[in-house]
Amino acid sequence: MMNGHRVNRQWRLKSRPVGLIKSSDFDLGTEPIPELKEGHFLIRNIYLSLDPAMRGWLVDRPSYVPPVQIGAVMRGFGVGVVEKSNHPNFAVGDKVQGMFGWQEYMASNGEGVTKLPQSTFPLSANLGLFGLVGLTAYAGLLEIGQPKEGETLLVSGAAGSVGSLVGQIGKIKGLHVVGIAGTREKCDWLVKDLGFDAAVNYKEGDYKQQLKAACPKGVDLYFENVGGEILEVALSRMNNFGRVVVCGLISQYNATAPVPGPSNFAAVISKRLKIQGFLAFDHAAKMKEMVSNFIEWHALGKLKYRVDIVRGLEAAPTAINKLFDGSNHGKLIVQISDAPTAS
Amino acid sequence: MMNGHRVNRQWRLKSRPVGLIKSSDFDLGTEPIPELKEGHFLIRNIYLSLDPAMRGWLVDRPSYVPPVQIGAVMRGFGVGVVEKSNHPNFAVGDKVQGMFGWQEYMASNGEGVTKLPQSTFPLSANLGLFGLVGLTAYAGLLEIGQPKEGETLLVSGAAGSVGSLVGQIGKIKGLHVVGIAGTREKCDWLVKDLGFDAAVNYKEGDYKQQLKAACPKGVDLYFENVGGEILEVALSRMNNFGRVVVCGLISQYNATAPVPGPSNFAAVISKRLKIQGFLAFDHAAKMKEMVSNFIEWHALGKLKYRVDIVRGLEAAPTAINKLFDGSNHGKLIVQISDAPTAS
Repeated sequence: MMNGHRVNRQWRLKSRPVGLIKSSDFDLGTEPIPELKEGHFLIRNIYLSLDPAMRGWLVDRPSYVPPVQIGAVMRGFGVGVVEKSNHPNFAVGDKVQGMFGWQEYMASNGEGVTKLPQSTFPLSANLGLFGLVGLTAYAGLLEIGQPKEGETLLVSGAAGSVGSLVGQIGKIKGLHVVGIAGTREKCDWLVKDLGFDAAVNYKEGDYKQQLKAACPKGVDLYFENVGGEILEVALSRMNNFGRVVVCGLISQYNATAPVPGPSNFAAVISKRLKIQGFLAFDHAAKMKEMVSNFIEWHALGKLKYRVDIVRGLEAAPTAINKLFDGSNHGKLIVQISDAPTAS
Repeated sequence: MMNGHRVNRQWRLKSRPVGLIKSSDFDLGTEPIPELKEGHFLIRNIYLSLDPAMRGWLVDRPSYVPPVQIGAVMRGFGVGVVEKSNHPNFAVGDKVQGMFGWQEYMASNGEGVTKLPQSTFPLSANLGLFGLVGLTAYAGLLEIGQPKEGETLLVSGAAGSVGSLVGQIGKIKGLHVVGIAGTREKCDWLVKDLGFDAAVNYKEGDYKQQLKAACPKGVDLYFENVGGEILEVALSRMNNFGRVVVCGLISQYNATAPVPGPSNFAAVISKRLKIQGFLAFDHAAKMKEMVSNFIEWHALGKLKYRVDIVRGLEAAPTAINKLFDGSNHGKLIVQISDAPTAS
C-alpha cells in the first residue's frame, strides 16, 4: 500500500537543527532502488524506531557515535523484510533488524543486520518491547542499577518506552516503584495498567510533595531519563548510598545553550551517591537472557508495552518531536511499508 | 606558652556565615576549665585541624552531620594530651585525637576519643598524614576509585592535604598522575618533590591545553576536590568508562546562591561514566591498613606531606579562609598549645 512506487524514498540531513527538529532540516528525495551485488540482499523497511538519542546524532560534536553528516541518509534503527537476496544466509521473506536509516529500502551485505526469529509477537514488538528499548531498560535497571528487593525505585520519563519497562521489571524484582510522567492519563496507565505503586505528574504544582509522599522511605535507586529540574528533585529525595542510573536527559536534547547540571550536585558527597551512565549496546551479551525473560513475563501479564505508530516515512521529521513534547503514548514508531500479515 | 591562663577559651558560633567565614560570625569566650567527673578525663588541645568540610557544618540544612548550632562551640577535629584523668583507660600524658572543637580544653568520658600510639612522627602528622586526611585520600582513591596500573589519574586541589596524598598513592600504584593546582609553586612542588608526572596551574590562561597535553591518553580516574569549571574541564577529558571520585567541591562551599552542576553532565551517558561521592568515616575499617602502608611508604620516601601551622586558637576563624583562597601550603592546622617535646 504505502510503497507502490518502486523507488527508494530517503530523508537526508540538509542542515543541523537548532532547537526542535524541523522538516526543513531534511530533504525527502528519491533514488533508484539499489541494484543487488553478489553477497548482498535488499531490505524493505517496515518500521522505523524514533528515539530521543537521534537528536544527539544530529549535533556536530564527538560522542559515542559520529554525527550524521550533512547530505547523508538519517541514521535510524528499524525492522524490515528481505525482498531480494544474493546472500547465502538471508532469504526472501526473512524479517531483519538493524540500522536501516530513514529510507524505504536498504541493500546490505549482512553486517550489523540481525535476523529476527519466528515469533507470535507482532513485528513492531521488536521495537517496542525487544531490541534496544528492552535492552536499555533491562541492562540499565539490572546491570547498572543492581536493585535489591524492597528498595524504592524512582523512574522519570516513566510512561516512555524505556521507563515503562523499567518500572515493570522493578515490580517483578520486588521493588517499590514510583514513576514521574507528564500527564494524568500517563500516570493512571502506569498505576492501573502497569502496576506501578504510584505515579506523579510533574506538571501538577504540588508534584514535589506528591513525590515525597509516594516515596515514604526515600529513593534507593533512581532511573533517569529526563534531567533538568526532575534530576534535582530526585537527588533531593535520594537515600544515603543511593544509585542514579543515567539513561537519558531528554529535557535538554533540544537546548540551544549549555544546560547547567543539578545545582544540588554536592549531594553526591553528603549522601555518598553513585551516578552512572550507560549505553545499551555495551550490554548486547544480555540480549538473549532479556528476550527469554521478557517472553515469560509478557505471557504472565507482568510486562506490557504499547506502541504509538505514525504512518508514512514522510512523517518522520515531525513525528520525532512527539518524544520531546511528551505527546507520544508508547514506543514511537514510523510505519514505512506494510507489515507481512504473518510475522 | 600559649596557655598560661587557666581558663578554657572557646569559639562559639554567633551567626551563620554568608559567603566567606568572618571572625564576627563567632564569639571568643572563656569558661572555667571543666571539673572532672568520675570516669572522665581532661584533654588539653594542641592541634586543631581546619578542613573545607567545616564550611558545610555551618549551614542550617540536613546533611551527613547536624549543623553546628548557634551558641555551640565550633566543631573541629584535633589532637591533644590528657592532663588529668579519672578514667581507667586514659592516663595523664596520653596523646589523643577526636572531635575536640575550637577550644583549649575538653572533658570526655572517652566516647569518640582515640588514643594515639607511640610514634616517631611529630604529633601534627596525625592531622597532616594519618587520621581523616589520610583516610580520605586512601579510601577515596583505592576503595572508591579502584585504580588499575597504567591508568591516568587526574587530581584537582592536588596541592591540598588530601590531593597531594592521592597523587602520591597513585604513583605508588603505578598510575600516570596529573595534578591541578592554583600556583606555579604548588605545581613545582607536586612534580619535583612529590613525583607527579605533571601539574597544571588553573590560573594560567592555557591550562586546558596544558591539561590535554599532560593526559595524552585521556583520564581514566578523576579525583575531585574542587568542582565548578574544573569539574567541567575534567569531564571533557574523561575516557569512556572513566570514574569520578567526588571528595570535595571546595570552589562552591562559600557560594551564596545555588551553584549549577557541570553543563556537560550528559557526558556521563555518552562516556558511560561513574561518578561516586564518599565520606572518609564510612571507611574507618581501612584505617589500620592505611597507617601500616603510610609508615612504610613514608620511610621509603614515597609519601611526603607538609603542614601549614597557624599559631593561636584566636586565629581559627580567619585562618580557615586560607583553604578557600588557596594560600595554605599543606595541611592547615591551628596550634592551640605547646606540643610535648617527645611525642
